[in-house]
Amino acid sequence: MLESVLQSFEPQMPQSLNTAIMVIGGAEDKIHGREILQNFFFRAGGSDARIAIIPSASREPLVIGDRYYTIFSDMGAQEIKVLNILDRAQCDAPEMQEYVSECSAVFLTGGDQLRLCGLLSDTPVMDIVRSRAQSGEITLAGTSAGAAVMGHHMIAGGGSGESPNHSLVDMTLGLGIIPEVLVDQHFHNRNRMARLMSAIVAHPDRLGIGIDEDTCALFEGDGILQVLGKGAVTILDPSEMNYTNQAEINKTDPICMGNLRLHVLSAGCRFDLRRRTMLLRESRRKPFWDRP
Amino acid sequence: MLESVLQSFEPQMPQSLNTAIMVIGGAEDKIHGREILQNFFFRAGGSDARIAIIPSASREPLVIGDRYYTIFSDMGAQEIKVLNILDRAQCDAPEMQEYVSECSAVFLTGGDQLRLCGLLSDTPVMDIVRSRAQSGEITLAGTSAGAAVMGHHMIAGGGSGESPNHSLVDMTLGLGIIPEVLVDQHFHNRNRMARLMSAIVAHPDRLGIGIDEDTCALFEGDGILQVLGKGAVTILDPSEMNYTNQAEINKTDPICMGNLRLHVLSAGCRFDLRRRTMLLRESRRKPFWDRP
Repeated sequence: MLESVLQSFEPQMPQSLNTAIMVIGGAEDKIHGREILQNFFFRAGGSDARIAIIPSASREPLVIGDRYYTIFSDMGAQEIKVLNILDRAQCDAPEMQEYVSECSAVFLTGGDQLRLCGLLSDTPVMDIVRSRAQSGEITLAGTSAGAAVMGHHMIAGGGSGESPNHSLVDMTLGLGIIPEVLVDQHFHNRNRMARLMSAIVAHPDRLGIGIDEDTCALFEGDGILQVLGKGAVTILDPSEMNYTNQAEINKTDPICMGNLRLHVLSAGCRFDLRRRTMLLRESRRKPFWDRP
Repeated sequence: MLESVLQSFEPQMPQSLNTAIMVIGGAEDKIHGREILQNFFFRAGGSDARIAIIPSASREPLVIGDRYYTIFSDMGAQEIKVLNILDRAQCDAPEMQEYVSECSAVFLTGGDQLRLCGLLSDTPVMDIVRSRAQSGEITLAGTSAGAAVMGHHMIAGGGSGESPNHSLVDMTLGLGIIPEVLVDQHFHNRNRMARLMSAIVAHPDRLGIGIDEDTCALFEGDGILQVLGKGAVTILDPSEMNYTNQAEINKTDPICMGNLRLHVLSAGCRFDLRRRTMLLRESRRKPFWDRP
C-alpha cells in the first residue's frame, strides 16, 4: 500500500521525450506529483536541461521567477536563467538573444497576457523563441497568461454568467506560436465556456481550446494534441458552423451559432488536429490511451 | 422616436396562436414587455383563457401563485385558478381534475424541481396535464424549476466551476412532458454548461437544452423548437458522440466526450428537432427569422 502511494509521487518520464509546446491552464501542481512540470522538465532535456523562465506576464516577476527556478533546480536542470524582461529594449540585448538561441526550453509564467504581449511581441527574443519552438528545437511551455498568448488571436479578458455576446470577451493579437488555436485558460474553473464561444464565433478559421487548471494541452508537432493533468481540455470546432448572427448584432445581444463540434478530453486522450477528431482505436468506443 | 419606444411596450401577438409547450429558463420579465408571459397568455386563448397556475415547486406557493394570478388577470384572462397543491392526495380531488381537464393553459412556477416532482409525478392531475399538453389541447409553460421537470430525465441539482464530472450533477426522473429533452435552466447566467455536459453524456439518447433567464424554448408540436426572449437556448446534441469514459470513472474524475454537436440559438431562431439542425433559408447563411 505504502509502496504504491510512494510510487505515485515518483516523477514519471513521459513516454515520448520529444520537444513540445505545452499549453497549461494555470494553477498547475507545483508541490505534489508536479506531473505537468515534470513532463516539461524531461522534455527540456532532464539533467541536461537549459531553461529560460520568462516571468514578464507577472507584476511580481522576481517572486514568480524564483518559484519556478527553485522547482526546476530541485528537479536537477543543468542551467536555469530567469529573463526578467521589464522593458521591450531588453529584448535587443545580445546576451538575452544568445541564451534563448542556445537553451533547450522556455517557460512563460502566469500574470497578465496583455502585459506579456506588450513586452514580447515583435521582439528579437520572441522571434527566436517562436521559431525554435515551431521547428521543434526547444520545448516551450506557457501557463495561464503564458497559455493565453499562444494563438494568433488572444482573449485579453472578459466575463462570465451571461449568454454568449460580444461584451463577454476582449480580443487582441497573441504571440502566434500556434496560430491555429484560440486559447482560454482556467476554463471550467472560471466558467469560461460562453466567453470562448463568443470569441471563436468571430474566428471560425481557428480552433477554440479551453484548458482547465492543472491541465495541459500538449502539441508535439505531429498534429496530435495530447492531454496531461487532472482536468479537461475542451475543444470548440467551428469549421462546420452553418450560421451565426455575430456580424450583425449589438455588443450585448446574444450571439447565435449553428453546428459547432464539441469535444472534451481528459488525461490520456489524443486529438487529431488536422482531422479534428479524437483518436480512437480500431473499436469505435476505445480511444488511444497513454495514461500509465 | 417616442412612438417607436411606446410601440415596443405594446403586447405583441405571436404570429402563431397554436398551443405550445413553453420551457422558460427562469427570471422571465414580469414587469416591462413581458414578452414570454404575453406569448403564453395569447396561446392560452387571450381573453378566453382559462389558466391553472401550479405554484407547488415553491415553498411560498401563495405568494408566487398570487403574483402570476395578478399578471394574467391584468392581461385579461377569463378565469384563473391557483392550484395550491401541498399534498399528493389533493391531486385525487375531482374538482381539481375537472379544472385541468377544462382549462386552456397550465403554468408551472419556479421553486424546487424535486418538490414539484414529489407532489405531482404519477398523480391523476399530472397525467391529465401531460396528456393534454402532448396532444396540443392546452398550452403548458414551466419556468425555472417548472422548466427543469419537462424531460424524462431531470437535473435535480449540482454545481459549477469544475471540469465536467459526475459529482457536478444530481440526476433523477422528471415529469416526462417532453421526454426527449434534458433541460437545464438559468443556464449561462449560472454557468451550467459543465453540468449539462455531465448530465447529457450519461443519456446520449436525449437532447441537452440549456435555457437562459428571460428566455423560452417553445415547442409547437410540429417538431420545431423556437426561441423567445432576451438570452440564448444552448443545444447539446450527443447523438454522434464517438467516445466517452463516463461509465468507467470515479465520481470526481473528469468526463471526456468526443464529437458532440453544439448549437446556440437566440430570439427568432428555429431548430428542427428531428433533423437536429437549425432551420436555414435557401442561403446557407440566413436562418428563418420570425422576430417582428
